[in-house]
Amino acid sequence: MSSLTPSSAAASLIRKFGTNRILSPHLRSLCAISALPLPNVSVVTDPERPAAYVWSMTGLREYLDGPHKAARDLVRDGLAANAGLLDAGLELSRAEYRDKVLEVMQQITAEGHTARGFPKEFGGQGDLGGFIAGFETLAFGDLSLMVKAGVQFGLFAGAILHLGTSRHHDEYLTDAIEGRLLGCFAMTETGHGSNVQALGTTATYDPATEEFVIHTPTPAARKDYIGNAARHGRMAAVFAQLVVGGETHGVHCLLVPIRTKDGDPLPGVTLSDCGAKLGLNGVDNGRIVFDQVRVPRTALLDRYAQVDADGNYSSEIENPDRRFFTMLGTLVQGRVSVGGAAINASKVALTIAIRYADRRRQFGAPGSADEALLLDYRMHQRRLLPLLARTYALHFAQAELVEEFARLFGGDGVKDDHDQRALEAQAAGTKALGTWHATETIQMCREACGGAGYLAENRLATLKADTDVFTTFEGDNTVLMQLVAKGLLTNYRESFGKLDPLGTARFIAAQAVEIAVEKTALRTLIERLRDVVPNRNDAADPDAGLRDDAYHSGMLRFREEHMLAGVARRLKRGIDDGVEPFEAFNRCQDHVIAAGRAHVERVVAEAFLAAVQAAPEGAARERLRDLYDLHALVTIESERAWYIEHGRLSGARSKAITALVNELCAVVRPYAGELVDAFGVPGAAVDVPMVVPSQHE
Amino acid sequence: MSSLTPSSAAASLIRKFGTNRILSPHLRSLCAISALPLPNVSVVTDPERPAAYVWSMTGLREYLDGPHKAARDLVRDGLAANAGLLDAGLELSRAEYRDKVLEVMQQITAEGHTARGFPKEFGGQGDLGGFIAGFETLAFGDLSLMVKAGVQFGLFAGAILHLGTSRHHDEYLTDAIEGRLLGCFAMTETGHGSNVQALGTTATYDPATEEFVIHTPTPAARKDYIGNAARHGRMAAVFAQLVVGGETHGVHCLLVPIRTKDGDPLPGVTLSDCGAKLGLNGVDNGRIVFDQVRVPRTALLDRYAQVDADGNYSSEIENPDRRFFTMLGTLVQGRVSVGGAAINASKVALTIAIRYADRRRQFGAPGSADEALLLDYRMHQRRLLPLLARTYALHFAQAELVEEFARLFGGDGVKDDHDQRALEAQAAGTKALGTWHATETIQMCREACGGAGYLAENRLATLKADTDVFTTFEGDNTVLMQLVAKGLLTNYRESFGKLDPLGTARFIAAQAVEIAVEKTALRTLIERLRDVVPNRNDAADPDAGLRDDAYHSGMLRFREEHMLAGVARRLKRGIDDGVEPFEAFNRCQDHVIAAGRAHVERVVAEAFLAAVQAAPEGAARERLRDLYDLHALVTIESERAWYIEHGRLSGARSKAITALVNELCAVVRPYAGELVDAFGVPGAAVDVPMVVPSQHE
Repeated sequence: MSSLTPSSAAASLIRKFGTNRILSPHLRSLCAISALPLPNVSVVTDPERPAAYVWSMTGLREYLDGPHKAARDLVRDGLAANAGLLDAGLELSRAEYRDKVLEVMQQITAEGHTARGFPKEFGGQGDLGGFIAGFETLAFGDLSLMVKAGVQFGLFAGAILHLGTSRHHDEYLTDAIEGRLLGCFAMTETGHGSNVQALGTTATYDPATEEFVIHTPTPAARKDYIGNAARHGRMAAVFAQLVVGGETHGVHCLLVPIRTKDGDPLPGVTLSDCGAKLGLNGVDNGRIVFDQVRVPRTALLDRYAQVDADGNYSSEIENPDRRFFTMLGTLVQGRVSVGGAAINASKVALTIAIRYADRRRQFGAPGSADEALLLDYRMHQRRLLPLLARTYALHFAQAELVEEFARLFGGDGVKDDHDQRALEAQAAGTKALGTWHATETIQMCREACGGAGYLAENRLATLKADTDVFTTFEGDNTVLMQLVAKGLLTNYRESFGKLDPLGTARFIAAQAVEIAVEKTALRTLIERLRDVVPNRNDAADPDAGLRDDAYHSGMLRFREEHMLAGVARRLKRGIDDGVEPFEAFNRCQDHVIAAGRAHVERVVAEAFLAAVQAAPEGAARERLRDLYDLHALVTIESERAWYIEHGRLSGARSKAITALVNELCAVVRPYAGELVDAFGVPGAAVDVPMVVPSQHE
Repeated sequence: MSSLTPSSAAASLIRKFGTNRILSPHLRSLCAISALPLPNVSVVTDPERPAAYVWSMTGLREYLDGPHKAARDLVRDGLAANAGLLDAGLELSRAEYRDKVLEVMQQITAEGHTARGFPKEFGGQGDLGGFIAGFETLAFGDLSLMVKAGVQFGLFAGAILHLGTSRHHDEYLTDAIEGRLLGCFAMTETGHGSNVQALGTTATYDPATEEFVIHTPTPAARKDYIGNAARHGRMAAVFAQLVVGGETHGVHCLLVPIRTKDGDPLPGVTLSDCGAKLGLNGVDNGRIVFDQVRVPRTALLDRYAQVDADGNYSSEIENPDRRFFTMLGTLVQGRVSVGGAAINASKVALTIAIRYADRRRQFGAPGSADEALLLDYRMHQRRLLPLLARTYALHFAQAELVEEFARLFGGDGVKDDHDQRALEAQAAGTKALGTWHATETIQMCREACGGAGYLAENRLATLKADTDVFTTFEGDNTVLMQLVAKGLLTNYRESFGKLDPLGTARFIAAQAVEIAVEKTALRTLIERLRDVVPNRNDAADPDAGLRDDAYHSGMLRFREEHMLAGVARRLKRGIDDGVEPFEAFNRCQDHVIAAGRAHVERVVAEAFLAAVQAAPEGAARERLRDLYDLHALVTIESERAWYIEHGRLSGARSKAITALVNELCAVVRPYAGELVDAFGVPGAAVDVPMVVPSQHE
């Protein structure tokens, strides 16, 4: 399977199915790319005839793996070695499963998988890009392991690294990185998940003892859903309102021991278990309540703000909102990682479902004793192949994001504010799109495999259950899309206002609305797009240019900018008319979120296009090109009502797009198996009974 | 909460929130329906001022419960009494959970819940409508219990009743109905789920011993996913190819013992376990392999076909396809039941998510110390309230379906073929739409509750996992939608051809295409619709008539009939052009399925409208009317691209529909809590910690 010429593929199909018409579109395209005549005897009798070029799957897989191939392969090998974990969640009790996950996590830690992203002086390799790539690859395996590793190394150790200073690094970082000191990232509370600026937990400085008193003042201030809290965590990075000298300075992070080495809760700390969850039952999510727990002054992670022994608070960042969001920068890594994990989980599901559809037959095909393959049904192609194309698109967008993240966070620590805000928005958007995509894709794959897909042994069930929370953790997707739109509307300038809609609306109204809405700029944009975006007058030739890159980009950019300008206008008009900012915002909240999404979709499509253009010449690039066209056109098709409403598409052209999407599905179909092979998901994760039935029969 | 006047509701909101603008749309509508002036001091000071009418939730709930209120209430009481079962799946081992489900099933059987649908002579009440209504109501509780009861009473006992004759009834039916004889419905095989006409299991008559020999000739012919097979079933209704005198007569059903009373497999029977599943782990799905298992001649359920001692086969139904589909009529009840169960599971999820959204606050609202309620955010309304409206629509469509089912199957056994085909299509369509709706709704509810929604204690996780298979069991939804379209295209006439796409295409091509495609008829239809369906010339007043019933019906009917005619034309043209029938069908498979869906959506919307019109006058009807408008307009909105492409909607009017949908969400929002209360889901099923936190704190 590693290398197959189109002509031999065509010949093999002809041998297998005869010149059966069902497969003729596939044969036609196979022949077309190999410059063969349409199927005839000479192909069958001369299967080894040299093709115009070689279709190398190995090359495509390497291209997808990109610069972090080594990190990915190391995780792939580890996954294969720990394949047993994939069944652990099904057969073990919850407590046993959690312990098993911990055991494997500590084992892979010992093998050096997880330290990669940390500075060399603490045993790491200073390779942030490889760290994220490796983390993403964990999503090919047991997702509880991935999430637990994310909590321990990304969130807990990450908070120490990014928010602490040398004394914290020296004291804790190596133990945290090597998995000896297990910790929690105690941010979310029962009452506040999205609006973390309003957390209720307090950390009050007592100058008499030079201690902070950590306290949970109300039931709503209980720390909730905290990974590692129910069973394994010994310390927590606790986010709390810092109160010094009677004055509240906003949310800061402190290291608070919560358990003894024997696992007993420390005095004043009440720990409980969130119990069974829809998925991720190998992660011990729990709750923490603090009753006047005292920690030394040095427990404050004091990179961005300090409290001296006498109780004087100081910070180099004067604006409290800006300070808060700077500290929250630690969340970016989590969002980048979860987005990547979601995309990789989609690859697992598609690998399984497409292989199944390429061997499962149901209902009769004419002139053949066999029934037809599921993947030869148009509806089945329509359900799975656009999702395959979007997975490729998101893969490349994610790869771009990881490089930018590594550039900004992995370097000398000097970050440009504008770049960082842009990165945060991009991470938020990719996370939201990638995790919604995973939910949709895995669901579709499950349905496409019928009852077999419902059995745990075929893995889709677990994938679905484990990834479901991705859309709401590390930032609820709808809130993240608002963040994206806000960044665009304010052009990332001075956008340190609160995350809440009110702050956005006020900010837009007061300062920056002109940036996006400025009319002459918009007019110029529309002029610029007019040439590449045909409008209703395209009726004469509705198919013209549908596979033209400039057309796709033009359409996606037009939608993005038109929507953003519309939102800005509506917000400004509302405020000008004296509408309360919350209501002004709320009236167009759906519009705001759609605008954010339009932006991310455009960026993702352009990342895919750039990857196609940068690919080495040859068959793999041609296949990527087909997939890209499919993706771009499906994206436009899904919003075709909007395009028609806004005069950018005629009814005839809209129908032509749908017809071309169907056609492109048929073009991609013969390569679908190879396209999922190129994801390089280890066999342990995808060789399930319904795909490899001989294992069980 | 049982009775609240709009004026007191308005006053209470004003007391609670002041004259805060966030809530003003709700206040406005509350005031409007109670004929009050817009909020002012007099409302606040006179909260008990008599309203124009009383909003009675009790009345609405009774209206929803309809003629089978007693059956529903009996199940509600049973559910409350067995509330412990709701947690059983989380804490027990799979084996223990299965046994617990069996125990509760036998207990409710003893209480008379499950016999309701059977003839009185076997201990039943002959009340088929009440039986289905009660079964649907089981979906408020543990879904493993519901499915296991469905297998035992609907499928196994149903097969004996519908396919057997008096000797089978006398020997087995009472024991089956009373849960003493546990049985399987062994139809699906590993190799064949949708295409059951191609099952591989054989039942070969041996005249020498007057026995049938049941055999599994290939691994693909293994019975798979069979409920009750892994642990509890002692007998199976086995669907097999009947071979008599060397001739195969197609699929028939025979009763085959599989286990001893002690639970050991009988000789020649190999039983295995499907193991863990995504959900429904309280049901013991398993696999059955037969190795030359002999059963007496009388094991054949011989209502529609008989084999005499000498091995002469006879049937009153000569056409083998027609015979097969007549026997398959037993599946209709399963489809009706699953559709209803899915709709009820959606009610549970919406009750939880809407109550949560009506108490959960996040992010600041101006002029208030409190943060804003989630349900006051437009995006949250947009995500949940159209689903609430569709749940009502499906509820009423399902109620219509149940009555028609009871009429046809519960009567004297004389069925009109045309009516039965129409019922089968309607059951298929409602099942597909209802189960897709459940998957979408429960997913949305889970996401709308964030991390809390992911915890098993809040029930959405279990609901999601348990209902997920509904879209593919009892008929894969895509295959069912093809069945719907096929019935419409052939006008249910002589449509006894095979279920497969090929048969459909051939049939359409050969005989009946004129029925749907006849051009003059289509032209008449379009003329008829022109008056009520404004086209592009509506730009002058895009809002006109958007809440007009005739407009909604006209639009939905236009789409349905236009799509069906288009499919018929394409199929016919393909065949006329000499395209292989499979390929001709396959080229428009997406179109076929969309046409089926368009039909079901129109029927569902009309059922809702009929229910609104039939409701007693008063506030409840007004609220239903708002919900109906919301549902009808969201349905049109979701296909607005198609309507614009086909000249039935202008861009301006399309935007006006979206604006009105947003507005209707705001109109419905203040009643959302009462509208879910009216579903009457017992507290045990919905009083989860995130909604009633005091229980756990």
